Amino acid sequence: MHNNRNGYSNGTSNGHLNTNGYTKDEYFDVVYDLSDFEDSEEEFVKKYECKKDHGLVEKTRYPDGSVRLRNPHIELMDQDILYHLALGSESHDLIEMFGDIKFVCMGGTPKRMENFAYYIMKEIGHKLPTGTQLMDISQYSYRYSMYKVGPVLSVSHGMGSPSIGILLHEIIKLMYHAKCKDPIFFRIGTCGGIGLEGGTVVISDDAVDGMLNRYYQVPMLGKMVKRPAKLDRRLVRELKALADPEDPYETVTGTTMCADDFYEGQGRTDGAFCDYSESEKMEYLEHLKNNGVKNIEMEILAFAALTHQAGIRAADICVALVDRLKEDQVRTPKEVMNEWQIRPQDLVTRYIKKYLQTKGRISFDGHGSVAVKSPRRFKLVQQESQTFE
Amino acid sequence: MHNNRNGYSNGTSNGHLNTNGYTKDEYFDVVYDLSDFEDSEEEFVKKYECKKDHGLVEKTRYPDGSVRLRNPHIELMDQDILYHLALGSESHDLIEMFGDIKFVCMGGTPKRMENFAYYIMKEIGHKLPTGTQLMDISQYSYRYSMYKVGPVLSVSHGMGSPSIGILLHEIIKLMYHAKCKDPIFFRIGTCGGIGLEGGTVVISDDAVDGMLNRYYQVPMLGKMVKRPAKLDRRLVRELKALADPEDPYETVTGTTMCADDFYEGQGRTDGAFCDYSESEKMEYLEHLKNNGVKNIEMEILAFAALTHQAGIRAADICVALVDRLKEDQVRTPKEVMNEWQIRPQDLVTRYIKKYLQTKGRISFDGHGSVAVKSPRRFKLVQQESQTFE
Repeated sequence: MHNNRNGYSNGTSNGHLNTNGYTKDEYFDVVYDLSDFEDSEEEFVKKYECKKDHGLVEKTRYPDGSVRLRNPHIELMDQDILYHLALGSESHDLIEMFGDIKFVCMGGTPKRMENFAYYIMKEIGHKLPTGTQLMDISQYSYRYSMYKVGPVLSVSHGMGSPSIGILLHEIIKLMYHAKCKDPIFFRIGTCGGIGLEGGTVVISDDAVDGMLNRYYQVPMLGKMVKRPAKLDRRLVRELKALADPEDPYETVTGTTMCADDFYEGQGRTDGAFCDYSESEKMEYLEHLKNNGVKNIEMEILAFAALTHQAGIRAADICVALVDRLKEDQVRTPKEVMNEWQIRPQDLVTRYIKKYLQTKGRISFDGHGSVAVKSPRRFKLVQQESQTFE
Repeated sequence: MHNNRNGYSNGTSNGHLNTNGYTKDEYFDVVYDLSDFEDSEEEFVKKYECKKDHGLVEKTRYPDGSVRLRNPHIELMDQDILYHLALGSESHDLIEMFGDIKFVCMGGTPKRMENFAYYIMKEIGHKLPTGTQLMDISQYSYRYSMYKVGPVLSVSHGMGSPSIGILLHEIIKLMYHAKCKDPIFFRIGTCGGIGLEGGTVVISDDAVDGMLNRYYQVPMLGKMVKRPAKLDRRLVRELKALADPEDPYETVTGTTMCADDFYEGQGRTDGAFCDYSESEKMEYLEHLKNNGVKNIEMEILAFAALTHQAGIRAADICVALVDRLKEDQVRTPKEVMNEWQIRPQDLVTRYIKKYLQTKGRISFDGHGSVAVKSPRRFKLVQQESQTFE
């Protein structure tokens, strides 16, 4: 009776769906909230029909699967300047430059994302033309660093939800301008673990704030807007399945808490201020553990909420650098930590390699070169990005 | 009857105060909330005595005026690693390196703060030893960039309250470890103006969030803690007095709104999402204007709240790059915007120059050189800072 969607057989009663070559199951996951994953087939189809009536598919995708913006104003603009990326819709030929992007990988620091760019380049066997090297595409913005390796974009997001939020607005607009089809976003980070040994990899299947709310709150026009911070459950499963039993570390799934601060916001006692005791802190961390919280970082809420809002499949994978139930500070030798940091990158790399092997049918011809549409506007965008904050 | 504190004469009935060479008026301003500035002398003294009873002076200052932390845990730690600055209390001799710091200037991007370091160096006539150049002190953290020019620290804070919040925790701890005396913090930024011509300089005298609350909220141990986001009114007056009538632009004071987002959080219509109309946006911006909001940026709330909490005098000075009542996008030529960006830097420079001219009595001898206390720990801190997020 209660068939869940894993047991759903394709081809039944979905003749009216345009799923663009995806299975129905895949297509649902791309565009929809998956919290109803355990629903029976009947309930699921009912929910889908209901959502379709409300036009949610049409809100986030064009018929060919390319990203559609939930903002009617953009189409009416003369030019859309992505200030913080130093790119513009009329200065650069964004389709030519980025139309082949399938994966957007984000992490905190420019250095880590530069390293990841070289790592993924080696792993997927991407070759650069003779006499070329990777360069920071957003160097003129002085804010984020962005590298492109074939279908993979590797970009730094800074620290905290506001910083990754700005980036997501502009990267989602970039996907739209470049007509990217069903892109997948990964956040590759580090975190504090809750009852997890250092080096453990956490794939987030839920995101909460410091009050354990499952939404991202942003004041808009004086009203507090709450956006559900939901992650793609299928992507979580797919990533989890790629964890090798031979890996010399654990890969777990669980709830991730998003803090707005590294010190007091995460219950650390080593900030400039601290009004609580060590035992109150431990009580709180135990409380988090009892609520399924596996790790704490500072970006997942905006990351989950904005990708969900855009109908983009996304996953947050972090390595725990310390077990917060044991200590606040990190005391592991450098060599060990360097090896740990590769782990989430490695998991994402396995996913990308598998995808490219099985779905390598996507043609990237005629994409991926730097293309200036208008030299005058190109210069202008560089100038404006250098200044704006 | 209603003498305000400007009219307060020194030397009356303050025999019991240890003001470390400051006038009583100055000393109050350093440590206390100045929202009661217009109180009569009698009321003011009453409030002061009340605060003294609660030990607020003792909480933020040692008797010699150096910064005291409101965190009993730090003193008990073997070593305090300032992860995001790549400095440590036992790896580096922080007193030797930073004991002469009087001014901490912060701004969004590494590039701007590097430029400011060179600008202030020229303006205060600071000379580097032959064969040396400025370097990024926090280069191994890959997060913030920090430059030191004599008594001035110039450091980037990234985007958003969480990012500047982490920096403030660590800079305040740095002030403590280095035994800096009564440091003054400036934020030098860019912003959107509300009814202000592009190029106008705004000195914030109040900070509000997107709901017009005058506090910074951070969840701590599962409870929402509200910290008053108060700025130093005397510093605002002093800075305003340094605005030259000959300046070819206006310098105004007013309320600054702190947004958690660049797009929807600031009522822009050019983000990846937008659920409101142009007229609803304009209505909101007019509403802000009617509430005294002069500009919008993304860091003042954490900046004002954390400096206030630490009893550190601080000011936020921004230049408006666009009048949001007229447009969302910036269309000013590069040369003009470059000139605009110098304006807040210039105002802060005037303050620092004046301070050094009038209070140049402070001895900086024996401070300001790189000093490694323990080579082993030095290496360890570098390693940990490179990894931690």
